[in-house]
Amino acid sequence: MWVGAAVTTRVAYQGERGAYSEEAAVRLYGRDAELLPLPSFDDAFDATEAGRADASVVPVENTTTGSVYQVEDLLYERSGILAVAEIVLPIEHALIARPDSDAAIRTVYSHPQALAQCERFVRARGWRAVPVWDTAGAVRWLRDEGPADAAVIASPYAANLYAMRVIEEGVQDESGNMTRFLALERRSPASLPADADTTSLAFATLHKPGALHDALGVLAARSLNLVRLHSRPVRGRPWEYAFFADVDASPASAEFAEALRDLDEHCRDVRVLGGFRRERAPTRGPEPGDA
Amino acid sequence: MWVGAAVTTRVAYQGERGAYSEEAAVRLYGRDAELLPLPSFDDAFDATEAGRADASVVPVENTTTGSVYQVEDLLYERSGILAVAEIVLPIEHALIARPDSDAAIRTVYSHPQALAQCERFVRARGWRAVPVWDTAGAVRWLRDEGPADAAVIASPYAANLYAMRVIEEGVQDESGNMTRFLALERRSPASLPADADTTSLAFATLHKPGALHDALGVLAARSLNLVRLHSRPVRGRPWEYAFFADVDASPASAEFAEALRDLDEHCRDVRVLGGFRRERAPTRGPEPGDA
Repeated sequence: MWVGAAVTTRVAYQGERGAYSEEAAVRLYGRDAELLPLPSFDDAFDATEAGRADASVVPVENTTTGSVYQVEDLLYERSGILAVAEIVLPIEHALIARPDSDAAIRTVYSHPQALAQCERFVRARGWRAVPVWDTAGAVRWLRDEGPADAAVIASPYAANLYAMRVIEEGVQDESGNMTRFLALERRSPASLPADADTTSLAFATLHKPGALHDALGVLAARSLNLVRLHSRPVRGRPWEYAFFADVDASPASAEFAEALRDLDEHCRDVRVLGGFRRERAPTRGPEPGDA
Repeated sequence: MWVGAAVTTRVAYQGERGAYSEEAAVRLYGRDAELLPLPSFDDAFDATEAGRADASVVPVENTTTGSVYQVEDLLYERSGILAVAEIVLPIEHALIARPDSDAAIRTVYSHPQALAQCERFVRARGWRAVPVWDTAGAVRWLRDEGPADAAVIASPYAANLYAMRVIEEGVQDESGNMTRFLALERRSPASLPADADTTSLAFATLHKPGALHDALGVLAARSLNLVRLHSRPVRGRPWEYAFFADVDASPASAEFAEALRDLDEHCRDVRVLGGFRRERAPTRGPEPGDA
């Protein structure tokens, strides 16, 4: 999964230096990429739309907590930015403390998603869990001003970046905890990667019985396999839903073009969100350039 | 939506006194219900399973942030507890401060879901948003030990309970922000309410092309309308999904019984999660017993 070019690529992501998204960005765009950490997903999309970044790398789905709905909503609402690559990273959370402290841990800080993924681990030890905005940011805070009885749940990558101590690795409740990231660039549906084997699209169904069944029938009729289907409330239209689907088809294929045309008749707001080669196994091992 | 009985009902919910779930519990089981606020959704399910509570009331879906996945997972995993009623409450977040302070606000505390629902409001004012475990708990904290420049986003109900001051009402980004709550009791699928017009079920699809289309076809073939469909990763089985569906059918109807039998052939782990009268409009106005 290497989509980097010879020219330095500026890659935006949500979080602070050391975030999981940064790891994904480095793996997707290479160690020479210029990293642009930003406070919010909106900021990352804005920077990519305005050309201040060449790409952004965002998490879309975790095997424990499910889809990252803020990212799905932005993908649905911003039409100039499409997904061009995906990468799956194992999320191995570590329990991290100050290297200069031996005090008993009383409070654990991390992002709500990370705390949710380690809920049983933290509960079993009777520690207080405090949600903060960012896993890597929590490690930096721990280094700069964390109390002696505080620990943070974040990646070994972040612990290393801020020279903090890993007390225990793999503290997530489910083994096999993984996050799927997308690389987003300013593209049109006609300029997606030529080797894409998966197309991501979204649509809203009409208000009539069997509407979703009919929509899926359009894909089934062309033997286009559905890799994934997910629904989201449509903002400002209570109890209406948009469906997000990943389909086993190249966005450039004739079958997909025909299915898209038929979907337009059965659904509202049909949108192509990207096309990419699907990752079938998580990416492991050293970062590109580490060797 | 009144399912209370003559005997006092003990109703468990996640959160502190004054939580949105408490409002839902009071509306569903009446003002005389014995309220049992608990730290987590697991605790509420445990209490109901063990008989320490007669029921629990839990949020399952918000029109802005989508489904509450922790509750969906528990509904899927715990087979002895079924949904018997639903209620939809408008979530009108208020900005709340200490009545004794006129200091400029610098930091806003609330639950991550509430902060997400008010993200633009908070961002536009340049305030720092700090996630905490509970909206009502934050109001109590504000009363007991909150600094002068702190505000909390929570319900007017909670502000009133803890005698704090509402500075501004309706601070959520989307008007029409609503949460759907379910009332859960120890029931078998055979003892769901006789007037139920909606059945909630879950299933996992088999790994073959068109599997979901086939499953939905079982419902469409009997003209059973799908009110809602949502997917969740199955815990411990990466990239496998369970689908949660609400169907326009009584759990006791012959059509539904036949559809369920057919679904068993097309899907894995088919489970009835509840049956209830569907709420078509949000419940507003004073609480039962207020007049």
